[in-house]
Amino acid sequence: MSETNPSDDADTAVTACVIVIGNEILSGRTRDENIQFLAEHLNDAGVRLREVRVIPDVEATIIDTVNACRATFDYVITTGGIGPTHDDITSASVAKAFGVELEVSDDAVARMTARFPARKMNAARLRMAHVPAGAVLIDNPISAAPGFKIANVLVLAGVPMIMRAMFDSLRHHLAGGAPMLSRTVTAFVAEGDAAPGLSALQDRYGDLELGSYPFMRQSRFGASIVLRGTDAARLDAAAAEVGAMLRALGGDPIEEDATATQTAEQP
Amino acid sequence: MSETNPSDDADTAVTACVIVIGNEILSGRTRDENIQFLAEHLNDAGVRLREVRVIPDVEATIIDTVNACRATFDYVITTGGIGPTHDDITSASVAKAFGVELEVSDDAVARMTARFPARKMNAARLRMAHVPAGAVLIDNPISAAPGFKIANVLVLAGVPMIMRAMFDSLRHHLAGGAPMLSRTVTAFVAEGDAAPGLSALQDRYGDLELGSYPFMRQSRFGASIVLRGTDAARLDAAAAEVGAMLRALGGDPIEEDATATQTAEQP
Repeated sequence: MSETNPSDDADTAVTACVIVIGNEILSGRTRDENIQFLAEHLNDAGVRLREVRVIPDVEATIIDTVNACRATFDYVITTGGIGPTHDDITSASVAKAFGVELEVSDDAVARMTARFPARKMNAARLRMAHVPAGAVLIDNPISAAPGFKIANVLVLAGVPMIMRAMFDSLRHHLAGGAPMLSRTVTAFVAEGDAAPGLSALQDRYGDLELGSYPFMRQSRFGASIVLRGTDAARLDAAAAEVGAMLRALGGDPIEEDATATQTAEQP
Repeated sequence: MSETNPSDDADTAVTACVIVIGNEILSGRTRDENIQFLAEHLNDAGVRLREVRVIPDVEATIIDTVNACRATFDYVITTGGIGPTHDDITSASVAKAFGVELEVSDDAVARMTARFPARKMNAARLRMAHVPAGAVLIDNPISAAPGFKIANVLVLAGVPMIMRAMFDSLRHHLAGGAPMLSRTVTAFVAEGDAAPGLSALQDRYGDLELGSYPFMRQSRFGASIVLRGTDAARLDAAAAEVGAMLRALGGDPIEEDATATQTAEQP
């Protein structure tokens, strides 16, 4: 991967799309808790999250969205809709997207009965043991009913605790590239004042991605400048220039955090 | 709209798609705060949020996504990317999506200079006064730089405080249908045990949408059953049956909340 041409990165980066499946997010009942986790942890694994789609529990929508996204991105991760109730239609819809049968997995049944021997394996619970033909199970250490992987599509639970446990059990199998690193420089400088200098810096650091995020605190306008890229030394150099630029505009810049890897759990 | 056939609702409901434009959400740096607000408040206005897409600050992606969504949904709401910096490309991209020129709006300039007379109107700030030809401005009572509406596309700021103020200034102009109402019944009953009864109830209440959301609290499994529809009496009847069903399974069900309108600000 070139370190001076971001379009090279765009061409060679390992990419992902997350599909959040659930009426509860679209109705506003539930606030999504999975997107940010997946964004951060994919990033740490060297996979760039390029798009998120939140869609309802509607078969045709799931099929169309999965097929559009799996053709476009290296990985597609779905969350939600793999429970035992009538509205849990993700597994069946993904099978249809791939044009394969939905089959009972004896391995999945064994995992569920081992974890909850006192529970009766009724038809509803048996739904959770069905996966598309050819899928590989993803372990669920919380509540046993597994997720699965078929081709480049990873199907995870929607309950955040379970989704995270499933992701942890598969993350080391993701074939990612270089992790994206970041620096953040924040000051009480109005974004409109910082914009010209920032644009000039972006032109000079074409291998980095410079973003500006305005805020209001204590009734004052400020901006956080976020620098992202794979080369720590280039990031340090650019962050220093951003700091100098903000200081010249009367700000008192603070470098707030460091690399994405510092916020990640250690393997 | 029929009250007994949900497919009629699907055909006649007023629909919306939200497009969240911003690398910061996809990198995991920022947790989205706008989706849930828009979901709830669109719903209160009788508009069903049917899809959300989170996309990066990339011109071709914005153009393609806006054009796909404006052809599919009654309303498209974008958030983010209308500030003064080089990465704020939403307005220019929406103009290209519509095939119209990006023009300076004298009205927008007047609003910005009236609010911040001491600030110099540099080239960066002037970016924020540019809107696609034919667009109507959306008022920004917080920081003056306006959003805009062009055809069925509403372009709002990404900063939550400003996005909310812009939405409040336009919400009464949304041509929505009947607000979606909801009931939630929660019990410590494992979802797999509730599933058969729930499926039978869904068959009998075809005009309502019954969803099941499992949780773990105090190491116990439970589920919230959410009932949604436009007819309060039908919801009450179905919620009572859900409660009885959960009680028969040994649960002690609680009806947690009521209609979406109760959570909304009063107009």
